[in-house]
Amino acid sequence: MDRPVLAFCVPKFAGGSWRAAMAEHAPHVVFRNRFEGFGDPALVRYAIAWNPPPGELAQFPNLACIFSLGAGVDGILADPTFPRSVPLSRVVDPDLTQGMTQYVLLHVMLHHRKQRAFDSFQRERLWKPLTAGPAGDVRVGIMGTGVLGMDAARKLRDLGYAVSGWNASRKSEPGMTFFAGMGELPAFLAETNILVCLLPLTDATRHIIRADTLRHLPKGAFFINAARGGHVNEDDLLAALDSGQLAGAALDVFETEPLPVTSRLWSHPHVTVTPHVASQSNPKTIAALIGESIRRVERGEAPLNPVDLLRGY
Amino acid sequence: MDRPVLAFCVPKFAGGSWRAAMAEHAPHVVFRNRFEGFGDPALVRYAIAWNPPPGELAQFPNLACIFSLGAGVDGILADPTFPRSVPLSRVVDPDLTQGMTQYVLLHVMLHHRKQRAFDSFQRERLWKPLTAGPAGDVRVGIMGTGVLGMDAARKLRDLGYAVSGWNASRKSEPGMTFFAGMGELPAFLAETNILVCLLPLTDATRHIIRADTLRHLPKGAFFINAARGGHVNEDDLLAALDSGQLAGAALDVFETEPLPVTSRLWSHPHVTVTPHVASQSNPKTIAALIGESIRRVERGEAPLNPVDLLRGY
Repeated sequence: MDRPVLAFCVPKFAGGSWRAAMAEHAPHVVFRNRFEGFGDPALVRYAIAWNPPPGELAQFPNLACIFSLGAGVDGILADPTFPRSVPLSRVVDPDLTQGMTQYVLLHVMLHHRKQRAFDSFQRERLWKPLTAGPAGDVRVGIMGTGVLGMDAARKLRDLGYAVSGWNASRKSEPGMTFFAGMGELPAFLAETNILVCLLPLTDATRHIIRADTLRHLPKGAFFINAARGGHVNEDDLLAALDSGQLAGAALDVFETEPLPVTSRLWSHPHVTVTPHVASQSNPKTIAALIGESIRRVERGEAPLNPVDLLRGY
Repeated sequence: MDRPVLAFCVPKFAGGSWRAAMAEHAPHVVFRNRFEGFGDPALVRYAIAWNPPPGELAQFPNLACIFSLGAGVDGILADPTFPRSVPLSRVVDPDLTQGMTQYVLLHVMLHHRKQRAFDSFQRERLWKPLTAGPAGDVRVGIMGTGVLGMDAARKLRDLGYAVSGWNASRKSEPGMTFFAGMGELPAFLAETNILVCLLPLTDATRHIIRADTLRHLPKGAFFINAARGGHVNEDDLLAALDSGQLAGAALDVFETEPLPVTSRLWSHPHVTVTPHVASQSNPKTIAALIGESIRRVERGEAPLNPVDLLRGY
């Protein structure tokens, strides 16, 4: 019998580190990328995908499971020919969660602790103590308290910040306030000092950060986006930064990545740009999860962390 | 009977916010500062002190308790005429602890997450993802895991960092490694990637950060000082930064404060200078603690958080 093939469907990347990691965690599977050729499409049973070229996954008639390399699957579901009957598994990995929580905490505290002001005082050799105020006076509002968002929310709460969450459906967690649905979005925003977007990108959340949501924030709020560029109307965001409605923003994701050199976001004095590094995939950890999912699928079970295609995450 | 007097012994500061806060929390006590005059020295029963002028406290023969405005009491004990028979109470306050933990976490993550490199890439409009690596590969070594240091240590552990502690006597806490005494300092330093000083300043810890301790760190370690400037030999620190033995430092405290404009620390490319803001006293919170201590002393009990003068903290 032919060994099952795992197709590596990631643009511009041969996946050497993934080949090595999968050889360890699923040695009976043959790893192939598009540069060497996938071989007989009928033998491709599994695919690792990240923003795959439209149509690439649909060419394999016998797929048993598709693995997203990240927590978000919007780049895979954007392909109109995506084979919706094949189970899709996303990454839920402590390393990704930890990285995202670090990013959120770092940028919450950079803002709350006025470190950018101290950096500028330092350039002038100016000793000028500013008061940050207690964390309990700062409300961090997290849009999307799934696995990643809830971990960040708990750590912020444990550091003393006031924390709110907003989701499609209502969640609960001790020491936090929750809002649900578009109807409660204005009330959530009205009490948020630092807004953090960690939502999945779906038709319901595309451009959810736009002029008519930003206007509900208290003047001088701060915005952190570590989800997807598609959540934000960047023109509206820049207008809110220019008017002072937003005091600043830390952005890890953009409508176009890499962020074009012509973007005003690069040079805005109150914007921090990072190159999509909030949460990074570690091949070794994720390959172990994919290996476990392959064994489950081969036993006729569901893979780890299956995506609900109706919700889109 | 005359009402007891509380003397406010803080240089260059009339203490208006403290007067208001003490009126709320100890209304039977009369607040006086040196500008209006302390009145009859025999009536001064209490003193609030922060770097008091030498001899100021010794002029009051009937002191029942002295209150430090911060966690560290080195500025008070530096007065050779300090009345050592009077109980000295230091501040142990959740706000101070929270502020210190934020400072430590912020600067640990600024370094670990390479945010300074991303800031510099942003100025060049350069999209250049760098990998931070998992927190578990970074060992944060905290010198001084008392109330403040242990809170920071726990939060760092909960974020996934490897954490070690070094103290005069051995401590224990799940998920951390502890070292004790000067004999174990080299072993502690040898495995520390980010060194955090939160020690009390005593004769035993003055200039503990000097060439012959810094050399035990792995090359390229990072240093955070949020304790006292007196812990550091600044010439040795600059030499370690210049040689690359230290990759960088975040410094909130200095041998001379405000940091003189002539100091090379202001302009060193790998040093972050903040103006002694890691942990700030909140008069309202601390006044409530002082009020509680006054009631205890009046009942013949010890005040909150009495300092052991033999240890010096």
